[in-house]
Amino acid sequence: MADIKVGIIMGSQSDWPTMKEAANILDELGVAYETKIVSAHRTPDRLWEYGKSAADRGLHVIIAGAGGAAHLPGMMASKTRVPVVGVPVQTRALSGVDSLYSIVQMPKGFPVATMAIGAAGAANAGLMAAGILATADADLAKRLDDWRAALAASIPEEPVDD
Amino acid sequence: MADIKVGIIMGSQSDWPTMKEAANILDELGVAYETKIVSAHRTPDRLWEYGKSAADRGLHVIIAGAGGAAHLPGMMASKTRVPVVGVPVQTRALSGVDSLYSIVQMPKGFPVATMAIGAAGAANAGLMAAGILATADADLAKRLDDWRAALAASIPEEPVDD
Amino acid sequence: MADIKVGIIMGSQSDWPTMKEAANILDELGVAYETKIVSAHRTPDRLWEYGKSAADRGLHVIIAGAGGAAHLPGMMASKTRVPVVGVPVQTRALSGVDSLYSIVQMPKGFPVATMAIGAAGAANAGLMAAGILATADADLAKRLDDWRAALAASIPEEPVDD
Amino acid sequence: MADIKVGIIMGSQSDWPTMKEAANILDELGVAYETKIVSAHRTPDRLWEYGKSAADRGLHVIIAGAGGAAHLPGMMASKTRVPVVGVPVQTRALSGVDSLYSIVQMPKGFPVATMAIGAAGAANAGLMAAGILATADADLAKRLDDWRAALAASIPEEPVDD
Amino acid sequence: MADIKVGIIMGSQSDWPTMKEAANILDELGVAYETKIVSAHRTPDRLWEYGKSAADRGLHVIIAGAGGAAHLPGMMASKTRVPVVGVPVQTRALSGVDSLYSIVQMPKGFPVATMAIGAAGAANAGLMAAGILATADADLAKRLDDWRAALAASIPEEPVDD
Amino acid sequence: MADIKVGIIMGSQSDWPTMKEAANILDELGVAYETKIVSAHRTPDRLWEYGKSAADRGLHVIIAGAGGAAHLPGMMASKTRVPVVGVPVQTRALSGVDSLYSIVQMPKGFPVATMAIGAAGAANAGLMAAGILATADADLAKRLDDWRAALAASIPEEPVDD
Amino acid sequence: MADIKVGIIMGSQSDWPTMKEAANILDELGVAYETKIVSAHRTPDRLWEYGKSAADRGLHVIIAGAGGAAHLPGMMASKTRVPVVGVPVQTRALSGVDSLYSIVQMPKGFPVATMAIGAAGAANAGLMAAGILATADADLAKRLDDWRAALAASIPEEPVDD
Amino acid sequence: MADIKVGIIMGSQSDWPTMKEAANILDELGVAYETKIVSAHRTPDRLWEYGKSAADRGLHVIIAGAGGAAHLPGMMASKTRVPVVGVPVQTRALSGVDSLYSIVQMPKGFPVATMAIGAAGAANAGLMAAGILATADADLAKRLDDWRAALAASIPEEPVDD
Repeated sequence: MADIKVGIIMGSQSDWPTMKEAANILDELGVAYETKIVSAHRTPDRLWEYGKSAADRGLHVIIAGAGGAAHLPGMMASKTRVPVVGVPVQTRALSGVDSLYSIVQMPKGFPVATMAIGAAGAANAGLMAAGILATADADLAKRLDDWRAALAASIPEEPVDD
Repeated sequence: MADIKVGIIMGSQSDWPTMKEAANILDELGVAYETKIVSAHRTPDRLWEYGKSAADRGLHVIIAGAGGAAHLPGMMASKTRVPVVGVPVQTRALSGVDSLYSIVQMPKGFPVATMAIGAAGAANAGLMAAGILATADADLAKRLDDWRAALAASIPEEPVDD
Repeated sequence: MADIKVGIIMGSQSDWPTMKEAANILDELGVAYETKIVSAHRTPDRLWEYGKSAADRGLHVIIAGAGGAAHLPGMMASKTRVPVVGVPVQTRALSGVDSLYSIVQMPKGFPVATMAIGAAGAANAGLMAAGILATADADLAKRLDDWRAALAASIPEEPVDD
Repeated sequence: MADIKVGIIMGSQSDWPTMKEAANILDELGVAYETKIVSAHRTPDRLWEYGKSAADRGLHVIIAGAGGAAHLPGMMASKTRVPVVGVPVQTRALSGVDSLYSIVQMPKGFPVATMAIGAAGAANAGLMAAGILATADADLAKRLDDWRAALAASIPEEPVDD
Repeated sequence: MADIKVGIIMGSQSDWPTMKEAANILDELGVAYETKIVSAHRTPDRLWEYGKSAADRGLHVIIAGAGGAAHLPGMMASKTRVPVVGVPVQTRALSGVDSLYSIVQMPKGFPVATMAIGAAGAANAGLMAAGILATADADLAKRLDDWRAALAASIPEEPVDD
Repeated sequence: MADIKVGIIMGSQSDWPTMKEAANILDELGVAYETKIVSAHRTPDRLWEYGKSAADRGLHVIIAGAGGAAHLPGMMASKTRVPVVGVPVQTRALSGVDSLYSIVQMPKGFPVATMAIGAAGAANAGLMAAGILATADADLAKRLDDWRAALAASIPEEPVDD
Repeated sequence: MADIKVGIIMGSQSDWPTMKEAANILDELGVAYETKIVSAHRTPDRLWEYGKSAADRGLHVIIAGAGGAAHLPGMMASKTRVPVVGVPVQTRALSGVDSLYSIVQMPKGFPVATMAIGAAGAANAGLMAAGILATADADLAKRLDDWRAALAASIPEEPVDD
Repeated sequence: MADIKVGIIMGSQSDWPTMKEAANILDELGVAYETKIVSAHRTPDRLWEYGKSAADRGLHVIIAGAGGAAHLPGMMASKTRVPVVGVPVQTRALSGVDSLYSIVQMPKGFPVATMAIGAAGAANAGLMAAGILATADADLAKRLDDWRAALAASIPEEPVDD
């Protein structure tokens, strides 16, 4: 487990269908990761422990997803210097605008690298994590470049009817 | 100090001009209180200690004000069963809508009694605290009734030009 | 009936599926309550009577849910010093932002303890009511602590696929 | 006083600079009116009395201005069949969007004729009141037509630099 | 047809399911009305003719519903002194906030009595029209009072499960 | 006057400080234009005449600015096939979001080429008009290319302190 | 292909159901066009090439549709003086408000003629393109006038039940 | 210059007062950086060059600030795998909500690590850059830990009047 550098955490099981997109990207790029449920409100001590030990455990990036009054990413950022990537999960009443504001509007001192609302944001969290690791991992940088090139190559020239 | 039942906490010194309105109301109603700066992000351990000891220290209400990604009220609610009254402090870019959403949209399990954005909300936090204490304090109930009657009596019949 | 300390009121029958979440929580915590339909606009005199008699009848908390131009919680707060907990019911066109603003943005003098929009907010209203009662009821405080501990204990360590 | 058919009411003295625009228009059109401060929350009984007696006192239109959780227009509409024209007063944090939603989003049964936020809305409330009275007052209809014609005639053909 | 005092107009056939609520209320109250499709953009000359002749044809109220960049109510208000009641029709992308702003934010000189977004607003437009007519029609005033009393009487004391 | 192909119209004199930015750009590009105040609500007949004669008078683009319930651009688009470029003027309460929605959310059939809120939008309206004319005017196309090149060339390499 | 004056481009295949509305209008009006997928982020070089060659290839209008952080229309406007018409595609979380703001709020120098969110906006983009071409094409102007007349003629006098 | 790993770029000179906060933080932490004006719309080729050469030049993080239709961060993310941190600059009409949506709502494939609107966000961009570099630089990690500890230590226990 020594080589797990990315932690994917989320506020509840219900966030998993969204956050799995981050895991899928990391799988595609060959990046090891762990997944945990860490609820800022229901398991604050778990959050504390996770944050305190993150750097020592060798984590280089923490991807944190939450919805509504989404305090998980910001609270994690207060407990560790390891970069935190935040994913605003879409919500029923406010469509994730509440999640977005709760995650992105952090005060000076505690940045959260906020992604788009929902599944696209979760996938991009995986890519951002890979991009950060790639700054010190030439092989991963190559795989990331290839992934990006493949994405570009997949775009057809013209739209087609179904 | 044994009779202090209300704690007023805030994320930073810059919240004090707003939160002072809560203190003023408690002064008018003869309710003792303490004031502390407890930053969810900058002093999370202070938040932890405050929350863990709140019930044992005899606090009956915690008034918590914060702005932006305002995590203080909700995180405090996760650490104690003592009722938390949240005050969204007005912000520069988003006028406090970010504060409001971060405070009010709490998940099931951790209510925050959210007040209006800004100074009116802070004053009302003081009144809500008094109203909660008054459920078990007939003298305070009388003073609160008088305060409310005086407010009503202060309204003139007709508007006047300056 | 003398020991009913919580009143759950709502603007119409259509609010009941939401407000029932508050009742369920109170059932789980062993807190007695009454439920009434009190429409601010259709039955204003009923609102008047309810508010005027609330303190004398021994109510310690009033939970009020309403949607749209949601005047019930705030008008109730103007008629009684008993703490009012407001639940913004989700609406069709504006998703409950109209309910939220109508409930939370109260002027100085008349606080409404506003909860999240929808079902989570209603459940939290029950918890807030219990938290208020628990300040003077050690047995309830114990049950509330247990409820919170059970909630925390129910969170699995890792997310799982369906 | 028998010929006063328009009542201008507002939640507080601070609304008068806005609501005075309605009075000014009625002055220009020669329509008699009364002005009162009627706070939904601070003087709910005054609201009750005003609403109950409005039709019998001969009022044909009630102009009601309020800000924030602006309950005055809607509550007045619940107490009388006399048409209520609502003016959302601009607010500090939310610019009057809170006032607008609290006034316009009334449930079926209790219409409030909502005007624009702020001074333009107050002036238009005066014009709406005059338009309603003019349906049964040919002289006023003539004066209103003249006012409108004068407004149109005042528009220059081309913009000019200061 | 001489006694038709209310015109219900709308921007397109697709608005009719919403606007029919206004017609239903007028049917219940025994108020005669006409219904027309008048598109501000597709049939501007029809709008012109309707507005110019409204007062002479004896109309006392015009109910106008439209969605999106909803110009019909405001343009009608510019063509006639007859009171215009505007109904913001709910839209797909913006849920009717676009309709609401386009209708309510009229400049000084041209009030539109704006109702809630959607069906409730359309029903209330019917009630507002009846309320305006009732200022000069004691029989209708009685029927409107009865309608309101019946609405109040229909509210049960307590909510019930399905 | 035969060679005036651009009309700049606005709802009121108060829109001129914004709309002048469009005129300035056309001056810089050597494009002739006329300026008129055409209020959708106060001078609807002027709007009618302007729209009906626009194509015959040789106009190729109409730039229309308005604020609040901004009906001028859309109503002009309903009266003429000449392309209408709309500029949402910033407003006091809603910062121009009302203007933007009223202008951009046009129904199928009547496009308005909507620009950014405020002065930048007005300047861009001038550039859009020039771009349209340039499709059939090689000299203007050259001047527009030069203007764009000069703009790019004016950007320094690095930011500097004041 | 020399006579293709309109290019319809979009960020991805998933935008085609929306953008097809523009193509349909151009088909109805007998205007030739090409359709391409040009992703600002996935195929930026394609965007560059398209923009650089647009004027020389004889394009007179470019219709560009995109959703979310919708950079395609604005980036295209930075690469060519050919008028760009932008269509904000509706999005899941934010309903296209993100698309709208990303397209319409362009800085001075680079106008995008922004249409309504979604299908109506796409259809209007086709009409705007036709309107621009019609300034130099009398036959197309005639067809556009006829299309508009037919639209007006299709509006029934009265609404009908289904 | 070989050791410059952070590039701070911005859309225009007017963004510098905001973006300077990022530079200040990097100065405090002893991190070398370069500053450039790179306008997505006015100097797209400069953006292209910067993006294409970023990885080869040894950049590990690019901080990009922009306002309004803020395309710079997202377009840079499309041109390089180097992590891009986006700062939404506050705007006049929409307070930076337009900047925020244009930056954060990126499609799958091109993450932008979005910070809070305005100066706090810029400062946090500097901290995020440092946090990323610190994953491979123990000395910087130590300095960052110290900076964070000093921030926590600077918070007084209680608020004080001015």
